[in-house]
Amino acid sequence: MTGELMRREMDEQPEVLQRIVDSAAEVRDRVRAVVPEPLDGIAFVGRGSSDNAAMLGRYASELAAHRPAGLAAPSLHTRYSSPVDYRGYLVIGLSQSGATPEVVATCDRLRASGAVVVVITNDDTSALAAVSDLALSTDAGAELAVPATKTVTAEMALVLVLAGALGDGLAGATELAAVPGAVGAVLSDEGPPAALARAWAGYERLLVTARGLAYAAALETALKVKEAARIFAEGMSIADLMHGPIATVGAGLPVLNIDGGDPIASDARQLVEHLRTLGAPIATCTPHPDSTLPMPGGLAEVMYTIVATVRGQQLARHLSLARGLDPDHPSGLTKVTPTD
Amino acid sequence: MTGELMRREMDEQPEVLQRIVDSAAEVRDRVRAVVPEPLDGIAFVGRGSSDNAAMLGRYASELAAHRPAGLAAPSLHTRYSSPVDYRGYLVIGLSQSGATPEVVATCDRLRASGAVVVVITNDDTSALAAVSDLALSTDAGAELAVPATKTVTAEMALVLVLAGALGDGLAGATELAAVPGAVGAVLSDEGPPAALARAWAGYERLLVTARGLAYAAALETALKVKEAARIFAEGMSIADLMHGPIATVGAGLPVLNIDGGDPIASDARQLVEHLRTLGAPIATCTPHPDSTLPMPGGLAEVMYTIVATVRGQQLARHLSLARGLDPDHPSGLTKVTPTD
Repeated sequence: MTGELMRREMDEQPEVLQRIVDSAAEVRDRVRAVVPEPLDGIAFVGRGSSDNAAMLGRYASELAAHRPAGLAAPSLHTRYSSPVDYRGYLVIGLSQSGATPEVVATCDRLRASGAVVVVITNDDTSALAAVSDLALSTDAGAELAVPATKTVTAEMALVLVLAGALGDGLAGATELAAVPGAVGAVLSDEGPPAALARAWAGYERLLVTARGLAYAAALETALKVKEAARIFAEGMSIADLMHGPIATVGAGLPVLNIDGGDPIASDARQLVEHLRTLGAPIATCTPHPDSTLPMPGGLAEVMYTIVATVRGQQLARHLSLARGLDPDHPSGLTKVTPTD
Repeated sequence: MTGELMRREMDEQPEVLQRIVDSAAEVRDRVRAVVPEPLDGIAFVGRGSSDNAAMLGRYASELAAHRPAGLAAPSLHTRYSSPVDYRGYLVIGLSQSGATPEVVATCDRLRASGAVVVVITNDDTSALAAVSDLALSTDAGAELAVPATKTVTAEMALVLVLAGALGDGLAGATELAAVPGAVGAVLSDEGPPAALARAWAGYERLLVTARGLAYAAALETALKVKEAARIFAEGMSIADLMHGPIATVGAGLPVLNIDGGDPIASDARQLVEHLRTLGAPIATCTPHPDSTLPMPGGLAEVMYTIVATVRGQQLARHLSLARGLDPDHPSGLTKVTPTD
């Protein structure tokens, strides 16, 4: 019940990320060698935590490549029989195990339909790697705790490297080198997430908000809290929140907002002011030292998505422990989810 | 506190949908006249309920056109300064009011970046219509209740008409004619949603699941329940549920699953069997007469997304009333949400 497995894998993140930093130039070259020219569009395929890394990839690659990017809908390819034409597309499939049947089947089908398929997986001998034009390894070592941690931040780092290969439109894509150190600093500062977990362990609901590039960290934090702590947490964009869901916010629904500074900082400030008037318990995860879950200063905004994801892992693990659960082995979950 | 405004607007849906059926052939011709050739991709833009109609459009148009479709991320265009190239793209912007600043700004920017922009709005003199190549009207009359109902199903019907203009790959896209009657039948059968609302009014959380084309109805039902009944409801794909969130499901978290039959029926059956083993309160919305919220038989699967959305409106309104709230005027919401 100590969550030592999850904790140990979280602690490996600076090292895993450093390997990605060290190989980034080579990976960019390998990606550039396969990108379709002209590039009609970019589509990511993933489920669970890999879908959240895909969300970061979707934002970052559209900014970098200046061409539209999106998330594929696997059921279109595994449940409906209509043929598709993906010529001119770069498809990026993500799976820690490389074994999720629907991710493999979707990538296989989109490649047969004309797409160039790059996959990101922690097992480059997996079924997913076998259906790709290029397989990038997260090289994170075996991950045994059910809640994925080091493979998720590794996937996030790799989608940023990949985005950097597609163009120069993403400010900060080359600033990945500062991330391993920032993640290490956060990992050695467990007081803030432990304190927040003690304060919020009694709630059965949680809202995690963000906007833009940090949105992926909100989705991943909510997922990790659901898995590890069995709290019904939802990740949501600040803009979506205002279009209806804000009606549910009040004293009984705590809100954690994540932001990495400009250009989203003013959205975050307005949100927090509004939430105060509704009486909601509020926490923030920002580079400001007064933040509830502070992050080290000085990084490019996009890089805070990875650092905030680590803050979210800490919160999820401490919430799990505070609720008397075992974060390493959440009820009803297995490490590979065989959806087809 | 009777929710008569919302109820009256819900009751207008068969008439609004019939007008869309009657003008479908003409609308398809107008869309065909502007679609880029060749078509590199399709992107939808919306927030709130319009984003849920966009989700249906995203699935339906990829099936129909055989080319990739996705959802645009407005913040990329309103918060980040990277230029984009949307040449070869069809962009569909949706907004009931046509006045949501970020939807207008995103459509304007994508059109300036080379996209052909079609908009769907209930006010074809709006700011959104002014930035389009083609404006399609939901022609639903003024909508005054804060929870959007008739404009949502009208947007859903119009995205199906639009998908039908892009190709013939969506089985059932021409079978819209049966929907007004099916919606009318559901509206005159309030017993089932009223009974379910009485049973579930005490829960503060709700999960609404679906897969494939019905996913949009799950998202919209969850949003309507949040708005009208202040219950923290989340819409989720059945596949995503299995990748982690299933850990939160148990006796305290009721689940409503929506499905319109094949090819998703077997996913739905497996889900319900699994939920039973977890002790979760379960309800279904399917064309089967034994379903908790039954729908009339005989429609194409895609059309059930619209009919199930109406079942969700009924459930949200009855949950609101059962909790002593006013569904017409939910706390903290206004009819036009000015996110930018």
